[in-house]
Formats: sequence, C-alpha cells, structure tokens
Amino acid sequence: MTSWRALVTSGIGSVANDPQQMRPAEVRRLIRSGGLSVPTSGFSAGYMQGNLAILPESLAGDFMRYCFRNPKSCPVLAIGEPGDPALPSLGDIDIRTDIARYRIFHNGVADGEVTDLNAVWRDDLVTFVLGCSFSFESALIRAGITVPHIAAEQNAPMYVTNIQTRPAGPFGGPLVVSMRAFSPADAIQAIVLSERYPLAHGAPVHIGDPARIGIADIHTPDFGDKPLIGEDQVPVFWACGVTPQMAIGVAKPDLAITHKPGFMLVTDMLSENADADLPRQGGK
Amino acid sequence: MTSWRALVTSGIGSVANDPQQMRPAEVRRLIRSGGLSVPTSGFSAGYMQGNLAILPESLAGDFMRYCFRNPKSCPVLAIGEPGDPALPSLGDIDIRTDIARYRIFHNGVADGEVTDLNAVWRDDLVTFVLGCSFSFESALIRAGITVPHIAAEQNAPMYVTNIQTRPAGPFGGPLVVSMRAFSPADAIQAIVLSERYPLAHGAPVHIGDPARIGIADIHTPDFGDKPLIGEDQVPVFWACGVTPQMAIGVAKPDLAITHKPGFMLVTDMLSENADADLPRQGGK
Repeated sequence: MTSWRALVTSGIGSVANDPQQMRPAEVRRLIRSGGLSVPTSGFSAGYMQGNLAILPESLAGDFMRYCFRNPKSCPVLAIGEPGDPALPSLGDIDIRTDIARYRIFHNGVADGEVTDLNAVWRDDLVTFVLGCSFSFESALIRAGITVPHIAAEQNAPMYVTNIQTRPAGPFGGPLVVSMRAFSPADAIQAIVLSERYPLAHGAPVHIGDPARIGIADIHTPDFGDKPLIGEDQVPVFWACGVTPQMAIGVAKPDLAITHKPGFMLVTDMLSENADADLPRQGGK
Repeated sequence: MTSWRALVTSGIGSVANDPQQMRPAEVRRLIRSGGLSVPTSGFSAGYMQGNLAILPESLAGDFMRYCFRNPKSCPVLAIGEPGDPALPSLGDIDIRTDIARYRIFHNGVADGEVTDLNAVWRDDLVTFVLGCSFSFESALIRAGITVPHIAAEQNAPMYVTNIQTRPAGPFGGPLVVSMRAFSPADAIQAIVLSERYPLAHGAPVHIGDPARIGIADIHTPDFGDKPLIGEDQVPVFWACGVTPQMAIGVAKPDLAITHKPGFMLVTDMLSENADADLPRQGGK
C-alpha cells in the first residue's frame, strides 16, 4: 500500500497542508474533484472516518438489524434517506462522489471498482456509514503506544474468524477481525483506551492464541498486509469493518456498494465527541 | 482458608443476616466486640474494603509519597491524624479495634499478630487505609465473570515480581501482584471493568507469560492460595495491596502495623462512588 506521506510529497503537490491538519470538508472536496485518491489513513486527525455500505431499501431494515445485533463490527454512524446521497449529520456530503474508491457488488460478488457512483446510483439505495478503527488508533498513538502497521505505513492485517455474527434476515456470516500486536502492558492500555470508542469497534474481541478464534496461520491474513509481531508481543484482535462485506456476500443483494478498504469517508464528526454524544449500541 | 460461609453457618450463629447484606457499621461493631473474626471477603457487598498500614509520624510523609508514586498498588482511601485512631471519612471507625487480625512489624519484620491495637497504640502513629481488589472483583462477578479463587472460596495467589516500585525515602522494593485467570474474552472484559476502579488497583499490570515479570513458577505463589488456571485461560496480574508490606520490610521502621491479609477494614465508602468521587492518583 502506498503511503499518503509518499503521495502527498510526490503525486499531489497541490495539497500544501499537512494531511493530518486538513479539515474533513477540504479532504472531501479534493476527493470529489478527483484531486485526491489515496487511502485516508492519517487525514484530518481527530475526526471520525467511516466504512460504507449501500443497499437497496428492501434490505435496509434487515441490514439495520444486522448492525444493531453486531455493534462491535458494525457501529452505525449514520443512515441516509432512501435515494438520498446526503448525510447531513456527518457533514456536507454527497456519498456518490466523496469517497475515492468504491467496490460494486452484484449478487454478493464484488465485480467492479469505481471512483464515483453517478452511473450506478438508484432511487432505492440506502447509505450506511459505520465507524472504523482510526479513532481508537489515534487515541493509542496519543498515549504513546506504537501501532505496528501504522508505524510501518501499512494496512492492518485482517482475518476471517470462526466466530459467527448474529444473523438478521439474509445477512450473516463470520466475524472479520483486525490484529495489532503489543507488549503485554501496552495491550492492557490498548484494551482500556479502545473500549472508550464504541463507535470505532470498542474493546477487542480476543487476545492471544489466534487458533482459538479459527485463525490457522497468523502470518497469512485474509485481507490487509502481513502482520508485524515483535518478540514478547501479544496479538490483540478487534472486530473489523470488513465484516459487513462478508455479510453482503452471504445476503447476495442484486446491488450493494462499499468503499474500497482504506479509502474511507472522512466525516465532520469529532472522534472525541463520538464517544460522548451518541448512544452505545447493544442488545438483541 | 476457612470460608465465611462455613463460619457464619457454624461458628457464629449470632450473625443472623447474610454477610453480603450486613451494613459495614454492623460488621465493624461485631469485630470490635470480638464477635466476628473471619476474613471479610464477601461481607457488605457494594462497600469498599481497605488494606491497613500504620506508621510512625516521622515516616508518614515518605510513605505518603511512596503511595502517590505507586498508585496502582497503594491507592490511598484515607489518612488519619497523628495519634488519632478515628477515620471519619470512611465511617465511625476506631482503627485499634475494627479489624479482626493485625500484624505487628518491628524493624521491618512481622513478629506478632494481635486482635486489637490497644496495647501497642502510640501518639505518633499515622493510619493509612489503601484500596483493595474486592471492589473490582464484585464488578466482575456482577458482569457474569467467574473469578476463580472466589468461586473456590480461596485467597487470590500473589507473587513478588521483578518490577520495582518507585521509591520514596526509605520505602521501596518489588511490586507484588495478585493473579486471576480468565478466558481471553473475559480477560478483556476484566481489564475494561477493573480500570474503572482506580482505588481498587485499577487495570492490570500484566497479562500472559509470568516469566516476563519475574515469576519463575506460577503454581508456587509467594502468598495466598495455589492458582486455579483452566485450559485455554490466560493469567492476568493486578498490582496488590501486599506491596506496602514489602516496602515496610525495606524501610524497617521501629514499629509498623498492618492488617493480616484477608482481614480487611470494611468501610462505609460505596464501591461505585469510589470511582466517581475521589481524584485519581498519579504522577511522580
């Protein structure tokens, strides 16, 4: 994965500002105009970024229940009106243009990648934005904890587990987790800090032995980059926003749209407010 | 260790009430009158219990700084006035009589055990009450997590580590930890819940490999009962209130008094309030 630092330095000289300092609206404006097409990790520090799932209205109720039943992997930040590409609670957003890379799914199979949704948008599409791990990762970094894949400017390794999500309607399937390795003391602090960000996947779901959750070989992730695990480090596993893409594969809707992993929606929602202002999800 | 259940059922028939439901003042009244001399685990559910350290005024300043520098092992609940056995902030307490078993240290060596302090009390003695793990253990149990040594009606296993406390004046020495083993998922929740009780030792200091903190054989604790570790469980280690007894051994004051482990001071302070009302400690 090419890092934003390299791209900002070389390819997109028009971005004069430090990406971390850019306002979310500025990032979205650049993406909308085609002037920025890099992964959004590191952009607009302090603001929530989101995973995207767009589904036909006929399945939106089932998907909403699926998210509600699986709040660690699918923490809902916003739900759009049917056919409406705006998401006013997250900023001045047109979801058809404000993400740099989209994946198109037909009947549960990802068979296309586009840079805007103008050609595929329909009046019955409902947009879901789900929290992502960037918020808690920022909190770890502020606390002085090294997040291995960020230090290496890579993607987190992600794994399909043997933990089944709670199904709703046609949606179901396995939980996907992301892994970060820490010293035991840092792992404890990472658990404590991430729990404060329920909209960014919250506390981890597993620590230690990968086989326990059905990961046969930790060095071969299903998505993302190879793991970086130092001697004396323990692997810690968080519910991952790729989980709903598996659920789309199970539900096989005629059309579904997600972001391409790494190319997130940059929202106006402050990471710190996200913990305090929004209700925690849970229940059955 | 004889359980309070057995003792309440057999030896002390005058205690008609469920020990968990007894008011702290009632427990202290029974102890004061010699009518109750069992470990206090399980008594007065929902109220803070405390570790005791009594030191000459000449060392009280150093010990206070020692506690401040080591807040996880020595979370201060109250400090008495020199020579005054009362602790009004914790209830109607006479510290000379309201604990069932005391240990007497001369020059850092525990050389006596008494049931009251009337014969040894001095006008220069300063009382420190330090938080203990019962509060967070109650929170774990309320959350449906089995705490192995409590389920077995035993003491937690405790270990002297190779982690050095931050010294202050003559006080110093190794950190003592207590161990509880959980499934990985319960360990994560135990970390999250215990962190909410900074006056009950807060989040753990270590998880996983015991050798990493200098514990050669986890099956041979330095204090308490043998550990109970199920298959697929991970050991989690918390800072322990026995640590100040090690520091007394290092400082060698002419006189020091502690409780006998397990025989705690039952206070009027609600466990839930302890988190919210009192300042967190920290710093250097």
